[in-house]
Amino acid sequence: MAQARHDNLRIDEQRLWSTLMRSAEIGPGNAGGIRRLALSDADKEMRDQFVAWCEASSCTVTIDQGGSIRARYPGTEDLPPVQIGSHLDTQVAGGRFDGILGVLAGLEIIRTLSDHGVRTRRPIEVVNWTNEEGARFAPPMGAARVFSGEHNINWLHGLLDDDGLSFKDELERIGYLGEAPAGNRPIDAYFELHIEQGPELEAADTHLGIVVGGYTAYGLTVKFLGTTAHSGPTPMERRSNALVGAAKFIDAVNDIGWQHAPIGKSSATRLVVWPNKPGILPSEAEVSVDMRHIDPAVTEQMRISAHQALSETTKQAQVGFEVVSDWTFGDVAFDADLTTLVRDTAGDLGVSAMDMHSQAGHDAYCVSEVAPAILLFSPCVKGISHNETEDVVPEDTWPSVNVLLHAVLRRADRE
Amino acid sequence: MAQARHDNLRIDEQRLWSTLMRSAEIGPGNAGGIRRLALSDADKEMRDQFVAWCEASSCTVTIDQGGSIRARYPGTEDLPPVQIGSHLDTQVAGGRFDGILGVLAGLEIIRTLSDHGVRTRRPIEVVNWTNEEGARFAPPMGAARVFSGEHNINWLHGLLDDDGLSFKDELERIGYLGEAPAGNRPIDAYFELHIEQGPELEAADTHLGIVVGGYTAYGLTVKFLGTTAHSGPTPMERRSNALVGAAKFIDAVNDIGWQHAPIGKSSATRLVVWPNKPGILPSEAEVSVDMRHIDPAVTEQMRISAHQALSETTKQAQVGFEVVSDWTFGDVAFDADLTTLVRDTAGDLGVSAMDMHSQAGHDAYCVSEVAPAILLFSPCVKGISHNETEDVVPEDTWPSVNVLLHAVLRRADRE
Repeated sequence: MAQARHDNLRIDEQRLWSTLMRSAEIGPGNAGGIRRLALSDADKEMRDQFVAWCEASSCTVTIDQGGSIRARYPGTEDLPPVQIGSHLDTQVAGGRFDGILGVLAGLEIIRTLSDHGVRTRRPIEVVNWTNEEGARFAPPMGAARVFSGEHNINWLHGLLDDDGLSFKDELERIGYLGEAPAGNRPIDAYFELHIEQGPELEAADTHLGIVVGGYTAYGLTVKFLGTTAHSGPTPMERRSNALVGAAKFIDAVNDIGWQHAPIGKSSATRLVVWPNKPGILPSEAEVSVDMRHIDPAVTEQMRISAHQALSETTKQAQVGFEVVSDWTFGDVAFDADLTTLVRDTAGDLGVSAMDMHSQAGHDAYCVSEVAPAILLFSPCVKGISHNETEDVVPEDTWPSVNVLLHAVLRRADRE
Repeated sequence: MAQARHDNLRIDEQRLWSTLMRSAEIGPGNAGGIRRLALSDADKEMRDQFVAWCEASSCTVTIDQGGSIRARYPGTEDLPPVQIGSHLDTQVAGGRFDGILGVLAGLEIIRTLSDHGVRTRRPIEVVNWTNEEGARFAPPMGAARVFSGEHNINWLHGLLDDDGLSFKDELERIGYLGEAPAGNRPIDAYFELHIEQGPELEAADTHLGIVVGGYTAYGLTVKFLGTTAHSGPTPMERRSNALVGAAKFIDAVNDIGWQHAPIGKSSATRLVVWPNKPGILPSEAEVSVDMRHIDPAVTEQMRISAHQALSETTKQAQVGFEVVSDWTFGDVAFDADLTTLVRDTAGDLGVSAMDMHSQAGHDAYCVSEVAPAILLFSPCVKGISHNETEDVVPEDTWPSVNVLLHAVLRRADRE
């Protein structure tokens, strides 16, 4: 077996930790985390650092039209690459590991191979996908959606942030508007390692989650429509307060989550009110909610409940509404061969592993639509993520990175 | 009687209408109303127009340190003036008459006196108070609060808008940072005519409301405190979603209004959420509510109910809270002599009048704390205000302006 050559190879844990902590200095948050929104100055600084690291490890770096970065460690043959990817952007108040671990674990794997002079048949690429979070340019996984062909590059370029700045202009401003195509790129396999962002691995004292499917998520953005009026003299029966409609709906959506707990989740995340001034009843309130369940049939039931709640709450509040947008994801199938490969590799390395379903969307979801892909989870403390206190226990993290190293090696070397 | 000289004097209805319609062109809204926020370019344009009109009618114009404009029509003696005032600023989506009628009716009265060569013993001043609405710089009635001594000028100058621009800088920018003191100004009497902003006069088919007291209002701004977390994997029982706490509270506050309807009112008007992004449970949600009742004891009961709801809803939603600010107003007593004067004047002119309580705050509330003051209402269509469709029936409006003319004449001429 080809991999027998390198069975004792392990990553340099200290180096990977130092690299993660260097990343955490770029766009620091207020409470120990990171604020590194896509295409911000901090994102540029992190990208520059990442590119410098990759080039120092015998990689060739390519920037595509969506700004995604691919660092290629050459193979012995000119074959489609094996990729390791995730994202370096964060939420407004994000953690130090969400996405970042996946990219920098890829870098560490290449550094390890480079240190030991290991070359595989296929090239290995580390990918930083642009704007996975969608915190600045909605929706999330923007660049990966172009890779998969769900959208074209013009769609991505045309996205606007809350200040009306365009994705393309900001990409150009930070110097990452590349020329390579963002989609239609043949790859042999895609591996993504991500912190779980939930509490299951920690609770099970297990070091590796092998994602075998996704929770089905349903998202809905609704605008409630009322009438501006003076908050003093206007009689209650003449009030059509868009914020009251939104509030009743938000409460109902939360109840739907509890009705399907502990597996089901349902929450409102965002509310924009207009004119949003004291003294005036608001005429518009736009709410975004998302609901998820492991069973698509239950998610569908939750979706129906949300729409029933919409009818009832708007009637109670004497307001109108319009559905602005809705979306669904999670009907994802990861590659059977890669799943077996990772499971076997974990067994060979003596790393505890369990199959699980992903509750969050990731770039791997998009890639899986057009190429063999696998999503792996490592534990995170108390399941906290999208929060500056997001944390990992280092010694509980390295096992998954070593499994990733060997699974990638085996895949890249296979005949 | 001094007023006998002018018993047949009436305003020029057509001129007042034209003046109101000229105002409506300055800072036009999207739906037939006005967007003329305090200290905006539109406010400057309106002020310049108002000053030009006043100066063309034999008035001397003074700007004070808070930007309020006083146009003085001289008396035959150097006595404290009789004032007619209100405001020319509007809500974000305001109407054409709210505040504006009071100022431009004052101008029309001076024009009428000037046309007929009428001079009174006391000077008559028309006042445009800066930032009555508070739509750009909270709280409302900012300049009038300095006039009354509730706050000093530095407090007013330090107010910030949502973009962080200061009141003083913006006042200077539009050229209305005057040198005259904003408070401690002796006046003989203050009259304010305002549209009712409620449906009572219209329903009673009455042309003049004589305000004999205010509804007691209680306002509260509360920040709900949760924890940011991923909207996907985080189990319901670990969610501390500030927006859910806010939603439950907004719903409860609305219920309190209904419990005390039709006299009581209670609504949320404003909600600011952070980070307010899809995919992340928000950690902060700041809600402003206001509640009003004609009976201070009932307002107090509503206040207690709101605080009870705050305890209960935050417990249900697993979030914390902090009270950012609260306020009350409405314990207002208008001047008995002025009330009698207006009532008698309406009787003499054959104008239908009724005593009422004001449900909204007005500059007259502040002035009444330091000088004899009276607040008068004229009907508005369907009680709609703080809305671009706010409207009046002209022939139902002129009677109140003529009562104001004669009441001011009598007061200014009195021995």
